Amino acid sequence: MTPRAPDPARRNERSRQAILSAALDLIGELTYPKVTIEAIASRAGVGKQTIYRWWPSKAAVVFDAFMMLNKGGSSEVVLPDTGDFAADMRVVLHATVAEFADPRYASAYRALNTDVQDDPALAEQMLARVLRPTLEAVKERLRAAQRAGQIDTGIDLDVAIELIYAPLYHRWLLRTGPMTTAYADQVLDLALRALRPQ
Amino acid sequence: MTPRAPDPARRNERSRQAILSAALDLIGELTYPKVTIEAIASRAGVGKQTIYRWWPSKAAVVFDAFMMLNKGGSSEVVLPDTGDFAADMRVVLHATVAEFADPRYASAYRALNTDVQDDPALAEQMLARVLRPTLEAVKERLRAAQRAGQIDTGIDLDVAIELIYAPLYHRWLLRTGPMTTAYADQVLDLALRALRPQ
Repeated sequence: MTPRAPDPARRNERSRQAILSAALDLIGELTYPKVTIEAIASRAGVGKQTIYRWWPSKAAVVFDAFMMLNKGGSSEVVLPDTGDFAADMRVVLHATVAEFADPRYASAYRALNTDVQDDPALAEQMLARVLRPTLEAVKERLRAAQRAGQIDTGIDLDVAIELIYAPLYHRWLLRTGPMTTAYADQVLDLALRALRPQ
Repeated sequence: MTPRAPDPARRNERSRQAILSAALDLIGELTYPKVTIEAIASRAGVGKQTIYRWWPSKAAVVFDAFMMLNKGGSSEVVLPDTGDFAADMRVVLHATVAEFADPRYASAYRALNTDVQDDPALAEQMLARVLRPTLEAVKERLRAAQRAGQIDTGIDLDVAIELIYAPLYHRWLLRTGPMTTAYADQVLDLALRALRPQ
């Protein structure tokens, strides 16, 4: 209740933001293996121990830095529902293409995709906090489309969501070709042929 | 032409094999960032300089080690063609599931997928030597299926191959669910619904 009470919390929050921003800056500037906790601390103007007080590893810092970019860290994903499943999915996939085209988002997400390969626990966390919210929102939208007779009710929706999303990740992660809205539209058109009632 | 002439070449080849095997062993035993050129040299019983004489980086060693596992490094991929596209693709996708289930193959491939995120030149090499041969072979098989009237001739085959393959990579790389032949079959069934003449 003293006037000075909020200061440490605010100072902590300022340091936290500075550390996450420094991590994002360095990931964009250097190749990821060259980004160290020391470099992040130095760029953020804090001591290395400040980072280790809040995060156990570089991967943990990167995860929170990515979450700061990823819809402000919200795990609430709601898809548009105009009644036209194809049009709604097109909006969502174009947003995904735009995210991948943002260098700051893309370099942080590549770093995160690197870290999870070696760390199944982190992969589980990424699945729960990054991938599942979007995939589940798409699944919810697919269920509505099933009720509206636009999607075959016999379809396994867990497979359906990967049929729609996986080609985008595949193209971006493995750099198999240009990552464009035209590509997203082609994928969606094919996926819709697979998913519609027949 | 002297009797001793072949020895250095054979010794070199033995060292090369020992280095690549040591790299694969260590990638399976440790988390990938902990695998160093020093550790590979020590495990292979060679000097660090021997490795640096042949490879510029750990990523380059890992690439060659993976290529040694990956169909013996052959870039010749030929798909079965029994006349039944669905049956032929099922054979190929089940083989992919089996590869991902092999811990030695999977850990090396995860390491390679890590390295390429930071290195577009290496990604290009992986695309050319690992991914494209398989994807092109599938494309060739798709063309035959188009001629046989099993696949819609209006389909963009570059998108079709990613529709078939990407869900497998996505599930494996991002650990979104169990990587089984049943999943591969579900993906293939949906992809075939998208690709058949309509």
